[in-house]
Amino acid sequence: MKQIIHLVFFSVFMLCGSASAETLQMTIHANRAVDLTQPMYTGMPYWPGTEPFKMERLADYDKGYRMHKFTLWENIGTHVDSPSHFAAGKGKRTIDQLPLDQLIVPIVIINVQDKVESNDDYQLAVADIVKWEADHGQIGKGCLVVMNTGWYKKFSDPQGYVNQDEEGVLHFPGFSAASAKLLLQREVAGIGIDTLSLDPGNDLSFPVHNIMLGANKYQVENMNNLDALPATGAIVVIGVLPVRNGSQAQARITALMA
Amino acid sequence: MKQIIHLVFFSVFMLCGSASAETLQMTIHANRAVDLTQPMYTGMPYWPGTEPFKMERLADYDKGYRMHKFTLWENIGTHVDSPSHFAAGKGKRTIDQLPLDQLIVPIVIINVQDKVESNDDYQLAVADIVKWEADHGQIGKGCLVVMNTGWYKKFSDPQGYVNQDEEGVLHFPGFSAASAKLLLQREVAGIGIDTLSLDPGNDLSFPVHNIMLGANKYQVENMNNLDALPATGAIVVIGVLPVRNGSQAQARITALMA
Repeated sequence: MKQIIHLVFFSVFMLCGSASAETLQMTIHANRAVDLTQPMYTGMPYWPGTEPFKMERLADYDKGYRMHKFTLWENIGTHVDSPSHFAAGKGKRTIDQLPLDQLIVPIVIINVQDKVESNDDYQLAVADIVKWEADHGQIGKGCLVVMNTGWYKKFSDPQGYVNQDEEGVLHFPGFSAASAKLLLQREVAGIGIDTLSLDPGNDLSFPVHNIMLGANKYQVENMNNLDALPATGAIVVIGVLPVRNGSQAQARITALMA
Repeated sequence: MKQIIHLVFFSVFMLCGSASAETLQMTIHANRAVDLTQPMYTGMPYWPGTEPFKMERLADYDKGYRMHKFTLWENIGTHVDSPSHFAAGKGKRTIDQLPLDQLIVPIVIINVQDKVESNDDYQLAVADIVKWEADHGQIGKGCLVVMNTGWYKKFSDPQGYVNQDEEGVLHFPGFSAASAKLLLQREVAGIGIDTLSLDPGNDLSFPVHNIMLGANKYQVENMNNLDALPATGAIVVIGVLPVRNGSQAQARITALMA
């Protein structure tokens, strides 16, 4: 009898444990961390036509405590797009359905700041990926591949960051459709960038969104501090808010490295 | 001349690097992860007198994409209290001022589910900490010390989770003031719990909040999945949204372990 009870307890314990602890695709060895998240504040940049971040003070120290209320669109600041964000990803994963083992992955940094310096509309070329792979080896399965355009350094200047011209056209760099297709062949977990969109600002047909979200991949926008990362060797922990049925959500993103 | 330019570039690079990469208090070795975050959704539990989480759908696939707007108080769901949340911590750190090396720390789990089973108002006793230390050694400096009350299992039943009686008194477990004072002596980074508050629900004088926030420590509330963690040996990555001047903010919290 005692043995049976022990067996039952053991089975329940095993079930609980296995339901919650996910095995990662790799082993993490790290003793340094970098914050890849932009600060959130009234006045932070936002996509034209959406609403700015709102923060109201509801109570202050005369009541003994301070309390704020946030109002925000799901796409402001450092955030993740789930496949369900676009019609191309309809029926695919919502933001709360991305598993931990795809949110804790190796991060690849492709630095194109020299190209962007002379071209706000620069698109990541297949040749940039080929060059990266010649230097560092083929991009492994399950990585987050991030374009470091240097644009994140403009975040505190919302006008420069959004960079809308007199005709209303946005100008900031992004991925090309061809580069996105190559990254799908590499079986990435997702792609990321340090601008408002994975697509270049001047292409509102969103080819990259359609390719990546249609393929059930996620995307990270408005990343920060990318110069502090090596081209390869760091691991990213994407702390995206698990909003049920959310198409996107804000994230605190941390890179870990040795 | 060329050498001088190189030196200048090198110095700038080093400055950028050292400004962003923070050394952690320990080395992380991990290949498994556990999500310690409660899901966010309309109808999720909230502190009586505050407002529920609101999620509006602003656009859907007939427009080519899906978009939501979130309205939420800074204290709903899994979140972190900064010292500035209470008058006792006035002038101390806001939520965006907690450094990464205090947000990526060893996590200590003190399991008191057997005590809570017969007492919704259970307070963590000094004896519980003494017992934990007899089993596992003294709690090290810089840990997040978390009470596993088992209460997180009620989260999907908001009425049971908030547990307000007919007189309006809340009933859920929390830390005692004496246990909080002992943990300050241990120089913890912060404390956490799987209920609405670090203080037991029936004590609205918030002694634990006053002690911990007054000592410039942070607190984590509404944690999830604590049974999946060992008493010691895991590391937590607290992905709290870096809201400038926020007194609290939502967080995605992940535990890493070997």
